[in-house]
Amino acid sequence: MSLPESKDFSYLYSDETKARKPSPLKTCIHLFSDPNIIFLGGGLPLSDYFPWEDLEVNSPMPPFKNGIGAPIEGDNAMQSHITKLQKMHEGDIPLARSLQYGLSQGQPELLNFLRDHTRMIHDMHYADWDVLATAGNTNAWESTLRVFCNRGDVILAEAHSFSSSLAAAQAQGIITFPVPIDADGIIPEKLEAILDNWTEGTPKPKLIYTIPTGQNPTGTSLADERKHEIYRIAQKHDFIIVEDEPYYFLQMEKYVRDKAVRQKQADNAKLQHDEFLASLARTFLSIDTEGRVIRLDSFSKVLAPGTRLGWITASKKLLKPYLSLHEMTIQAPSGFSQSLISGLLNRWGQKGYLDWLLGLRHEYTLKRDNAIDALYDFVPQTKTFTINPPIAGMFFTVNIDAAAHPQFKTVYNSDPAAVEQHLYEEVVKSGVLVVPGAWFITEGDTTPTQPASSKENNAPNEIFFRGTYAAVSPEKLREGLKRLGEMLQKEFSA
Amino acid sequence: MSLPESKDFSYLYSDETKARKPSPLKTCIHLFSDPNIIFLGGGLPLSDYFPWEDLEVNSPMPPFKNGIGAPIEGDNAMQSHITKLQKMHEGDIPLARSLQYGLSQGQPELLNFLRDHTRMIHDMHYADWDVLATAGNTNAWESTLRVFCNRGDVILAEAHSFSSSLAAAQAQGIITFPVPIDADGIIPEKLEAILDNWTEGTPKPKLIYTIPTGQNPTGTSLADERKHEIYRIAQKHDFIIVEDEPYYFLQMEKYVRDKAVRQKQADNAKLQHDEFLASLARTFLSIDTEGRVIRLDSFSKVLAPGTRLGWITASKKLLKPYLSLHEMTIQAPSGFSQSLISGLLNRWGQKGYLDWLLGLRHEYTLKRDNAIDALYDFVPQTKTFTINPPIAGMFFTVNIDAAAHPQFKTVYNSDPAAVEQHLYEEVVKSGVLVVPGAWFITEGDTTPTQPASSKENNAPNEIFFRGTYAAVSPEKLREGLKRLGEMLQKEFSA
Repeated sequence: MSLPESKDFSYLYSDETKARKPSPLKTCIHLFSDPNIIFLGGGLPLSDYFPWEDLEVNSPMPPFKNGIGAPIEGDNAMQSHITKLQKMHEGDIPLARSLQYGLSQGQPELLNFLRDHTRMIHDMHYADWDVLATAGNTNAWESTLRVFCNRGDVILAEAHSFSSSLAAAQAQGIITFPVPIDADGIIPEKLEAILDNWTEGTPKPKLIYTIPTGQNPTGTSLADERKHEIYRIAQKHDFIIVEDEPYYFLQMEKYVRDKAVRQKQADNAKLQHDEFLASLARTFLSIDTEGRVIRLDSFSKVLAPGTRLGWITASKKLLKPYLSLHEMTIQAPSGFSQSLISGLLNRWGQKGYLDWLLGLRHEYTLKRDNAIDALYDFVPQTKTFTINPPIAGMFFTVNIDAAAHPQFKTVYNSDPAAVEQHLYEEVVKSGVLVVPGAWFITEGDTTPTQPASSKENNAPNEIFFRGTYAAVSPEKLREGLKRLGEMLQKEFSA
Repeated sequence: MSLPESKDFSYLYSDETKARKPSPLKTCIHLFSDPNIIFLGGGLPLSDYFPWEDLEVNSPMPPFKNGIGAPIEGDNAMQSHITKLQKMHEGDIPLARSLQYGLSQGQPELLNFLRDHTRMIHDMHYADWDVLATAGNTNAWESTLRVFCNRGDVILAEAHSFSSSLAAAQAQGIITFPVPIDADGIIPEKLEAILDNWTEGTPKPKLIYTIPTGQNPTGTSLADERKHEIYRIAQKHDFIIVEDEPYYFLQMEKYVRDKAVRQKQADNAKLQHDEFLASLARTFLSIDTEGRVIRLDSFSKVLAPGTRLGWITASKKLLKPYLSLHEMTIQAPSGFSQSLISGLLNRWGQKGYLDWLLGLRHEYTLKRDNAIDALYDFVPQTKTFTINPPIAGMFFTVNIDAAAHPQFKTVYNSDPAAVEQHLYEEVVKSGVLVVPGAWFITEGDTTPTQPASSKENNAPNEIFFRGTYAAVSPEKLREGLKRLGEMLQKEFSA
């Protein structure tokens, strides 16, 4: 059975996208490799003068049986040799090509790996999808705003979301509209109510921006059944879904406080590849039947942030304006990044990469468990504080009822934000840095289109702090959370 | 004598720049390296899990006495070892840092090299200048448009200019206004006349975009004395000068047809470093007393395009909005590119890098001479065709009086553009690709602000084709130009 083609959503494009003409030079660049044509067309320097002959690279070797951070020696050592002119492995991108102009979509060896990976992870329901290499999800999201949005357009986002993503939109004059969330992410009924009651005559949202897995900053994950509901609402109100998924492969088992049970789980957690794949959250991409979903993936959290390499998966139609934009911005991700990542992943193979992702899951599970244990050990066990152990990502939150602060009314004028700011200053003084929730509020009250329902807040005095268990060692993490807990204890005792 | 501070040009910023709020997360990232603070602030993955332990790199070794393309062996071989945690050379950037988040301005070891390089090449007349790493000049130029321009703003550009740069502006709704050029670049008198007669009530240009050295597509270079004049006009009419200088280090001696004289010149051309530095064109940066110049440099033409690494030199004030923008777009250039380039350049040292640039100059001089020799040998020596041997860059042009085509009136209705299109098709058929000048026209007639003077054209039927001598071997280049010459001969004989 052949799959249907994606729908045409070009009517949602920005004025900029509609006005963008491809550079005429791109119409002739394919002649560079035509043996019958002597190419005097474009300013391509000879690779003879690229001053890197080859790179010898030491990396860990699947199946990483002593863990992904184990010393690179013995049977955990893999050496790659990336050269200027030759392929030492069929998945290599010779430096003469990766360091040259051209191929803005990405180098074929890397794209082919990502296409195979996509087929393994997602359940694609339309035929004409593809991938496009990016300089990471920050770049991909900013490009998304340029591709779709004009000044004055509205986009939807989780009520607390990644501050840089929101700031990028706001600088462009795009109005960010908050959607209520709970411990399972966006609440579909509230989303639908907002859209059903949208003020007539004001622009309807062109897209929703969501971080479904291990959401930043709340650490929550969007429940699978809600994704189906949200997709239905997106069809009903005709907007694009942008799923920003840097933490997708940091999914774990649920946190269990009982260490004996946990140990049992950990033994089970040595998943086979098929069990691992089956355990992953369903993606919007896997629900999409029309090419309405744009997925942003990144190597930042699974390999390294400074690779500045990620990819977009979407319909070929929707990838076209990204390609035209990128030809005028990044041109392409770094050739070194492409050669080194393609060399690594193609040597590992899809199976070796799954081994790596399983190893990562194991490390993050230990980190998460260590963090949540410490929170339960050091944060006072009262109704004032709520701990929501995450099932994915790098972040946890400590939610606090600011009204329980002894000086809530007297010193802070019943303003939870003032308590939050005070606690932030105290926590830094105590020698640990966690980030106040106020830094992540999706501002939406600048627009007259905002119906009252989105302002609704069941816990008006709730504040929270976001922490990460990614950045430091287990010992430091525990010590940091001890300091946090002691500060909270001191502050909230009468 | 201490230098003055730069002026404040923030009144020229775009609405987007004015609205851009820094991400609050950036206010705490410096605490990551504070030993007294346990950092649970940002989602920074541990470098233990970056799957690249080290890179061993083979590169050529200064002084490149057998040429910059010589085999990397014997005393022309330099091996660098870039590791995850250690500096094997003081100029190295360990991968644990370059592959981590942070340092959007660029890694210090690389920036320090570029600052020293700047002091050597330019004559800075104000104190608070700095450099900022970019993902190449395409990225830097597009960022410049975002930093300064709103929809409907006007910018000036050479009457023929790099099509991708123009297209980037036009897609953003920015009006590109052509400035007449001749064999020495922008004509200051014409520029001044345009601005003195600017239609009242229409927005005046915020900036001029110029490629002073080895201009793309015309291959011309802007004369030094004209730069002083243009700077004066920029002060008078208060606009920014953006000098896009990817070809700056592809400067050469003037072309000499007589091979004996040329050989003598070539012997002289083995310049000492101080002679080489003295021979370089004066830059707008060296004229700038106010911080009105933004210079875009790139490693694309001197090392390799796929490094996607360049830098902006400007006042610290003007670099700030670029940094804020880049934190929401590229974040930083690839860490691999930064580590590999910093490792290479700091091992070479400033002197070794000058050796490399001298070597490059030598190669391009040979290429240019070979190209111009072939043009004189194969293009009919009549008044119909003009050859302007370039003194810099990668490009040459063949200018053609389209009215001399035997079918100019009969078949082509006296339309030079129709002749150009026909010749383009014929030249590709003949097996060589050169690019028609029409692809590079700076469109300006969409705005009512355009005074008639800029439309002035002393040679209304002149068309041209741009070729490059960069991309192919000398033999292929000569064969390609033979095909071009034969085609022109055939087309223009009655």
